[in-house]
Amino acid sequence: MGEIVHKTQTQKKVALVIGAGEATGGAIAKRFAQGGYITCMTRRNADKLQPLIEEIQQQGGEAYGFSSDARKEQHVIELIEHIENNIGAIDVLIFNIGANVPCSILDETARKYFKIWEMACFAAFLVGREVAKRMVTRQQGTIIFTGATAGMRGSAYFAAFAGAKHALRALAQSMARELAPQNIHVAHIVVDGAIDTEFIQTNFPELYAEKEQDGILNPDHIAENYWHVAQQPRDAWTHELDLRPWMEKW
Amino acid sequence: MGEIVHKTQTQKKVALVIGAGEATGGAIAKRFAQGGYITCMTRRNADKLQPLIEEIQQQGGEAYGFSSDARKEQHVIELIEHIENNIGAIDVLIFNIGANVPCSILDETARKYFKIWEMACFAAFLVGREVAKRMVTRQQGTIIFTGATAGMRGSAYFAAFAGAKHALRALAQSMARELAPQNIHVAHIVVDGAIDTEFIQTNFPELYAEKEQDGILNPDHIAENYWHVAQQPRDAWTHELDLRPWMEKW
Amino acid sequence: MGEIVHKTQTQKKVALVIGAGEATGGAIAKRFAQGGYITCMTRRNADKLQPLIEEIQQQGGEAYGFSSDARKEQHVIELIEHIENNIGAIDVLIFNIGANVPCSILDETARKYFKIWEMACFAAFLVGREVAKRMVTRQQGTIIFTGATAGMRGSAYFAAFAGAKHALRALAQSMARELAPQNIHVAHIVVDGAIDTEFIQTNFPELYAEKEQDGILNPDHIAENYWHVAQQPRDAWTHELDLRPWMEKW
Amino acid sequence: MGEIVHKTQTQKKVALVIGAGEATGGAIAKRFAQGGYITCMTRRNADKLQPLIEEIQQQGGEAYGFSSDARKEQHVIELIEHIENNIGAIDVLIFNIGANVPCSILDETARKYFKIWEMACFAAFLVGREVAKRMVTRQQGTIIFTGATAGMRGSAYFAAFAGAKHALRALAQSMARELAPQNIHVAHIVVDGAIDTEFIQTNFPELYAEKEQDGILNPDHIAENYWHVAQQPRDAWTHELDLRPWMEKW
Repeated sequence: MGEIVHKTQTQKKVALVIGAGEATGGAIAKRFAQGGYITCMTRRNADKLQPLIEEIQQQGGEAYGFSSDARKEQHVIELIEHIENNIGAIDVLIFNIGANVPCSILDETARKYFKIWEMACFAAFLVGREVAKRMVTRQQGTIIFTGATAGMRGSAYFAAFAGAKHALRALAQSMARELAPQNIHVAHIVVDGAIDTEFIQTNFPELYAEKEQDGILNPDHIAENYWHVAQQPRDAWTHELDLRPWMEKW
Repeated sequence: MGEIVHKTQTQKKVALVIGAGEATGGAIAKRFAQGGYITCMTRRNADKLQPLIEEIQQQGGEAYGFSSDARKEQHVIELIEHIENNIGAIDVLIFNIGANVPCSILDETARKYFKIWEMACFAAFLVGREVAKRMVTRQQGTIIFTGATAGMRGSAYFAAFAGAKHALRALAQSMARELAPQNIHVAHIVVDGAIDTEFIQTNFPELYAEKEQDGILNPDHIAENYWHVAQQPRDAWTHELDLRPWMEKW
Repeated sequence: MGEIVHKTQTQKKVALVIGAGEATGGAIAKRFAQGGYITCMTRRNADKLQPLIEEIQQQGGEAYGFSSDARKEQHVIELIEHIENNIGAIDVLIFNIGANVPCSILDETARKYFKIWEMACFAAFLVGREVAKRMVTRQQGTIIFTGATAGMRGSAYFAAFAGAKHALRALAQSMARELAPQNIHVAHIVVDGAIDTEFIQTNFPELYAEKEQDGILNPDHIAENYWHVAQQPRDAWTHELDLRPWMEKW
Repeated sequence: MGEIVHKTQTQKKVALVIGAGEATGGAIAKRFAQGGYITCMTRRNADKLQPLIEEIQQQGGEAYGFSSDARKEQHVIELIEHIENNIGAIDVLIFNIGANVPCSILDETARKYFKIWEMACFAAFLVGREVAKRMVTRQQGTIIFTGATAGMRGSAYFAAFAGAKHALRALAQSMARELAPQNIHVAHIVVDGAIDTEFIQTNFPELYAEKEQDGILNPDHIAENYWHVAQQPRDAWTHELDLRPWMEKW
């Protein structure tokens, strides 16, 4: 867990990014830091967040990293409690976990089917609920879930991921409809396409080559849209938008 | 588990109804029995299936009941193995489990959120996969999942159920797209509205009173649509249809 | 216009098929005739309906053909008036017109864009409204619109057809929601795939060759689904279903 | 038509707003003027655009108003030709016309049903096509259509408007899928809720009173989202987003 900070610092608002393990979460964290938020980030192993934290600090920002398994209720409860008590009020929550491992329905294991849902949906529920409880007391806040095209329609070999992402979208819609009247803005951002990450560079070099013609998503550009949604005045809230490269078929 | 039956009986096809615990599953079982299928049914406690089995038998049908918890992988594997080895080839699978317990997102427990998904979606995955494995070897079969309007859009207080039913719909779509080229027909039937059951009669008497003007779904009428879908020739398959009373808002 | 018939005949109910110009409309007409309905059919040139009428009559049915341009309000008003006054009460309306002529948005003409909408949507509105007016006075009736996958999502080169079919679906949904409480069942059937017609046989012989493995829709099988929907008791109405060959990608 | 301008001015890019007759279109025009675009605006009677043009000019912007009926193909062709030849290359097109006049399907007139489609959809097709032709030659541009929740689902009394807005959404999707590979960004923005206009103030004073608690959409806030979408780098394009007040049910 991060260190305790002084009360005076708690006047600033906190943006919490769950899943800053790869490029997108990190870029989002940097964008909110740049916008004046104290930035809290989680990934399984917080050590790996250190370069990101230093980068933010060097630019005058305030950032904290946490090792956290968002699938574990007790971890989540403690994390949120710690941040709220010691760092500041969570004004923006960004949930950015989820991974697809395509597989024939005939070969899909119960373990993997469960884990894909647990990461992309159950963890979102746990974090969303805990943060929403705090936001409701303040009648203020923004929650953004990272969705996928698989959340809109099922496809061959995508049963597990499509299921998890459909369930996540249902969570986002249900929370949006329940919490909007309490001044809490819940949005679902559908990111569709390869993202400029080391993973893509290493494993899909042909796809990565499309970067030259803007064929893969730049994490900073994704982040700019999360920022935009979080800054919307409450008379004009977006609940869903998609982001995809111009070259992407959909 | 049901008794071993003679080989000669295995020439008939089996319709397996997972979740014959209330009116709909039972009505579907009766409809397929009437259409010449050997009918296998499950619910948590098979003793309660006895009246239904006897009713089918008295009309000349062949029926078997099984105590089964469809959320347990080993149970499901053994159940399918038993039916396939001892009763007959499963030609039609109907998955009919799932329950809504509305709740504010702020109060929803991790346990209940999980259980609602486990029943309505994870069990469907387990049974669907096990049966699909057999159907693929025969290049033949029909799988029908019972959906809900909550599978199409999220709503306040419905986060858990909407998530589970969205995930179920994604499962149905993903399986349909993967398995259709193998001659396996996968469909998702959206049942929207109160059903004529003891539960509704006891707990929602005002709603039940609408029965007089056909305001609640008759299980036999639901069953007729499952039968219809299962009988469609493969040049004209339905993958999704809805069923709702004329008085229902949607 | 068809001949005047005796009052005694008007006890039977009428099924009206708008657009019986190709295989599907004709098959639907035959199915409803076989089910005991007086069948009225329209196409641009009623002469071509003669073989169909004779086929129905030889099987003991009663059928009438009308030359009618469903895009012309006055034609539609007179047609419905004639049938209601002289043949019988229209209990089932099936709207089955619409044609796709794919085209780049850059080359699409205003005339064609308009005509595609006029045929597939405006005509549906005109006929639907006129028939609904009668059905409302009787608090009884079924209206089925033939939709397409293009009614669910737009695609490159499909701007005109997708627009028309989206608008048709919106009409079906709007009418369903307004008229269901008046006991009028409005449904939208999405037919997706090549149909076994002379047109396909002549122009797409390779596609037609898939008929051998049930890869194209049999009009009689389509018709069976229209019949099924029209016969649903009002406690379990379907408002949308799709029909596609097992081999169809979607 | 506006005056001829000097070639040197044509280096700046043009944003064309079709339908600047009420608050939203005007606010969008101002936002793009502020962002450095030459702004062209249309409404039925251009005289009424004069105050808006002066406002933009006083802030150092360049603006032109045109009387134009976007439903008339020849008008549209001439308008686009004029702007492209005399003012500058249209880099952004915003289509912002469309009006709902709710009505029972039983009472809807053919004339009104047609007109609602003609305004909200046919005009969009005409302008979209003409502008897309120019953008394709430059392999550059953004087209944004103003949609509505009625474009997503039909409702009682909304048959005409829902049909028009569904068709518009299909146009947007079809154009987006065809033109994205040509570097043309097509988006559909769903504006749902009352907007802060004189019309609402005069005709729906109770609704207007919700302005005090941000219950109606501020045109400037809508405009900010159009600007955001138009500025997205092409590796992260949005094709659809919604805008609604926090108090709005949907």
